[in-house]
Amino acid sequence: MQLDVNNIKTLDPKDHPDWEVAQDAESRMKTIYKLGDEMGLEERELLPYGHYMGKIDYRSVLKRLADKPNGKFVNVTAINPTPLGEGKSTTTIGLVQGLGRRGKKASAAIRQPSGGPTMGVKGSAAGGGRSQCIPLTPFSLGFTGDINAIMNAHNLAMTALTARMQHERNYSDEKLLKLSGMPRLDVDPTRISMGWVIDYCAQALRNIVIGMDGVNGAQDGYMMRSKFDIAVSSEVMAILAVSKDLKDLRERMGKIIMCYDKFGKPLTTKDFEVDGAMTAWLVDAVNPNLIQTLEGQPVIVHAGPFANIAIGQSSIIADQVGLKLSDYHVTESGFGADIGYEKFWNLKCHYSGLTPDASVVVATVRALKCHGGAPMPVPGKKLPEAYTTENVEWVEKGCANLLHHVNIVKKSGVSPVVCINAFVTDTPNEIRKIRELCEAAGARVAVSKHWEYGGEGALELADAVMDACNDKTTFTPLYDWSMPMRQRIEKVATEVYGADGVDYSFEAKARLESIENDTELSKLGLCMVKTHLSLSDDPTLKGVPKGWRLKVRDVLTFGGAGFVVPVAGSISLMPGTGSNPSFRRIDVDTDTGRVEGLF
Amino acid sequence: MQLDVNNIKTLDPKDHPDWEVAQDAESRMKTIYKLGDEMGLEERELLPYGHYMGKIDYRSVLKRLADKPNGKFVNVTAINPTPLGEGKSTTTIGLVQGLGRRGKKASAAIRQPSGGPTMGVKGSAAGGGRSQCIPLTPFSLGFTGDINAIMNAHNLAMTALTARMQHERNYSDEKLLKLSGMPRLDVDPTRISMGWVIDYCAQALRNIVIGMDGVNGAQDGYMMRSKFDIAVSSEVMAILAVSKDLKDLRERMGKIIMCYDKFGKPLTTKDFEVDGAMTAWLVDAVNPNLIQTLEGQPVIVHAGPFANIAIGQSSIIADQVGLKLSDYHVTESGFGADIGYEKFWNLKCHYSGLTPDASVVVATVRALKCHGGAPMPVPGKKLPEAYTTENVEWVEKGCANLLHHVNIVKKSGVSPVVCINAFVTDTPNEIRKIRELCEAAGARVAVSKHWEYGGEGALELADAVMDACNDKTTFTPLYDWSMPMRQRIEKVATEVYGADGVDYSFEAKARLESIENDTELSKLGLCMVKTHLSLSDDPTLKGVPKGWRLKVRDVLTFGGAGFVVPVAGSISLMPGTGSNPSFRRIDVDTDTGRVEGLF
Repeated sequence: MQLDVNNIKTLDPKDHPDWEVAQDAESRMKTIYKLGDEMGLEERELLPYGHYMGKIDYRSVLKRLADKPNGKFVNVTAINPTPLGEGKSTTTIGLVQGLGRRGKKASAAIRQPSGGPTMGVKGSAAGGGRSQCIPLTPFSLGFTGDINAIMNAHNLAMTALTARMQHERNYSDEKLLKLSGMPRLDVDPTRISMGWVIDYCAQALRNIVIGMDGVNGAQDGYMMRSKFDIAVSSEVMAILAVSKDLKDLRERMGKIIMCYDKFGKPLTTKDFEVDGAMTAWLVDAVNPNLIQTLEGQPVIVHAGPFANIAIGQSSIIADQVGLKLSDYHVTESGFGADIGYEKFWNLKCHYSGLTPDASVVVATVRALKCHGGAPMPVPGKKLPEAYTTENVEWVEKGCANLLHHVNIVKKSGVSPVVCINAFVTDTPNEIRKIRELCEAAGARVAVSKHWEYGGEGALELADAVMDACNDKTTFTPLYDWSMPMRQRIEKVATEVYGADGVDYSFEAKARLESIENDTELSKLGLCMVKTHLSLSDDPTLKGVPKGWRLKVRDVLTFGGAGFVVPVAGSISLMPGTGSNPSFRRIDVDTDTGRVEGLF
Repeated sequence: MQLDVNNIKTLDPKDHPDWEVAQDAESRMKTIYKLGDEMGLEERELLPYGHYMGKIDYRSVLKRLADKPNGKFVNVTAINPTPLGEGKSTTTIGLVQGLGRRGKKASAAIRQPSGGPTMGVKGSAAGGGRSQCIPLTPFSLGFTGDINAIMNAHNLAMTALTARMQHERNYSDEKLLKLSGMPRLDVDPTRISMGWVIDYCAQALRNIVIGMDGVNGAQDGYMMRSKFDIAVSSEVMAILAVSKDLKDLRERMGKIIMCYDKFGKPLTTKDFEVDGAMTAWLVDAVNPNLIQTLEGQPVIVHAGPFANIAIGQSSIIADQVGLKLSDYHVTESGFGADIGYEKFWNLKCHYSGLTPDASVVVATVRALKCHGGAPMPVPGKKLPEAYTTENVEWVEKGCANLLHHVNIVKKSGVSPVVCINAFVTDTPNEIRKIRELCEAAGARVAVSKHWEYGGEGALELADAVMDACNDKTTFTPLYDWSMPMRQRIEKVATEVYGADGVDYSFEAKARLESIENDTELSKLGLCMVKTHLSLSDDPTLKGVPKGWRLKVRDVLTFGGAGFVVPVAGSISLMPGTGSNPSFRRIDVDTDTGRVEGLF
């Protein structure tokens, strides 16, 4: 069967892998000029990158439409993901396509994928089946260069720091001042909080020693421990996500705490006089990117922080633009409602002043079975029988995880819409059970077949979302930012994650105490870092774990992004590459220039 | 005075810094669509990046114009640079503008600037005065992303290598095969030739230890020494420069030697199954970039290797495209004729099969005085009086360096055109002496005022170049590639640099012996790495040093780029950041988004 919307016929995903569906549609997609024109951009506001991608001059759009009221603001979140995936990006795109079938102007905001997962575990982060964004390949491989710009801005700061340490060691106060015009900053080499970044899962760079040949006044750096984190966890990435405009971004860029001096005073990017040049790397990146759904609607892509190790949101600027140009703007937050939606609720909305009209919680019958106790599936291996035959009991038990996420959304004062992302193996009894439990908990429920049928399959979801957007919301933050940091952490742990309490490592406790005692730092926000695979800090615990305490082992201070980052459990800001990484299957057809194997 | 060409009026550089001249002209520059149309690109062949930059679909152009004869091919090289700079990029752009005033269709090919020098020592690499390319800021800051793509492709290989080493240590043969489907590669951890790259001068990353916490079967990498080089010295960058098309690039990408196994066998990117994915990062980067001169002519920018630490050429693809579309295509090679032109002559032209019709050798009176023995000037300090008052003797002595470079060009069988890049302080007697000496050596000489007057000031140069292009050339390689590697090195050292001979370190000698004894490796080309500041390997020796021997201390094997890289003297593939770096002066006007201080 072929569907015809906006003159785009799409292949049947039951017969074709995602990348074939995408590449086939790409041969008929709209030019970026047409897409921009249809969504209401003026010609000069659309900056093309090739014929099918572009950037939006957000400054011009927001100025021109300052008086226009915003469209409805819809968030998409999910249950805790399982190895099967719950299809959150697919649902975000599917919902926009469904709203389009109902005659609404709709747009999506999603994050730019990181090279780490793309090359490590999966090829594409563009949705799936008949609910994808295109063009698929450039979106997945560097796109318009924003993550690279972030990486360059971030590593410029580290270049400044390490060169300065070398010069301060090599020169007397007088000579230093004469050569550089800068006073001695006196970095404490044992208290350097910032590391370098790279956009891969390079576990070998987690803990390194640099400046090996620069021990005694030489020109080869300053010998010390250092580290690389994945670029999407960079504070510069967080700053791009939370900045309201270039001015806001510029101010934040000077407040990144890089290290401490020998008297314990924090030294920032501004102290190293590198904040202006860092911002210069980002003058294009601050403009959000534009591509399209398979059915020809705008998908705004901007910023790419993960929700388990970072803030997990696409940018505020992307949402501001989408809300001005659409009747319904659908923004995705990373992973489950425990981490992605919680940070949307208490950080992103705090900074933007925007409030959602509804939030979709995505679940699949298969993932619920997994949370309910069915044998854990292994990606690439044959699915256990439990997942292909009816088992209402496992579904019912797994719904505890779903209901927990529904309740997180309700706690924020927003109407939840449960989206059952349908599979051919789902049975009516399984669906009925989910519907019964969620409706009893006060959520709307929609079964959505957008993977199989695109927007036509998402009409039930689109209707439920439009209906939910008419509810009166009472969006309220979980805590006031004047609350002491540990109380805030404990509130998130107990009321959002369901922990019994919080335990701190010796270092974490000391850092949090000094943050609480500091006039400035105590006013910062809170960005929890925790595994996405469980409500708890133990990735192996499914369902709704009981009788556990959150273990905070480290605390970072992101002065520019404006929040404190407690790191819970064993999660690392540099993921690892496994023994059978996906890059092995990626290649290029040199006759056509097409990239193969990104799936 | 304002000049009006192509409706572009430019500010007088005597009253305005370079960036003001550029930004003023940018307010009136052509759109990239108009520029592409004027140079003969079809609409679909021009891939815009914003409204003023673009990429060229080289494959379509070369296919469409396969039967069209090439234009004239002009190289621009120079004397050994001094701290004052000799203005090679400025001359390249000026010459194209001058040819334009003579009614010729002309294009330039230059290299993309690296973030290292841009953030460390200088802001722009776009020429100067009334001979610049625009838009200046995006050109200098990441441009269309090619260097970032190269960095990502390169570091993906290192991610693959280090992850593999960890997994091979952690797992038995059986488990490894089961998990990954790959046999054990058995990397010798003491023989890893490849490092990581970053596009800054980060001396602290020259010598590092990675995998610090991955000592005993853990998941934190494999502990070993490693290194970061600057991205523009990457073999992947060299591959982009020498590839004739995507197919050629794909093949080369699999031949990068990353390390050796425990039996001494080289292991390549193909062995690590990462070459396809590396190529995928480069499917856009393989298309050359397009911007314009201040007077509205095409400037093709592609690849960015330095000539002191790498091949130092813009890409073969850029030249192929320029030669099809222009009457005169002017390509710059890095630094002086000793390193940049030598590699153009014996490497780039070998791969491309193209031969130059003329070569410009750029010199300034000031730089000749410096080579002649005048006190060394210090950038940013007041110029010693020797440079602002007439001194024919120093100029005459300094001409020895110029004549050496003229003779290098003549040795290749090509007519040299000496371009005296004029300054207001030059006197008629000084100019007369240069003219007399160069003409006696068989070179054409032109005094060019393109910095001050743009194309109108470069008419003498344009005429001399057009005249030289009518000479019969006898372009012949310096050596046959079947010659043993050390003989070739010695030929370059003695006949090009003027050394008495070559001394090898113990390691360099051993590596060259094994290369000479290997059927495949002995067929590779030769890419010398040496300081650009002197004809010798000692950067402090000016003029034409006598009685010295070239010291080769290291040898790299670039199997993909297809050449052996002997490293002479103390030069490093990772430059350093000084005590007063230029990033301190770079900032952004947040009202306009304009970058300031890039000059």
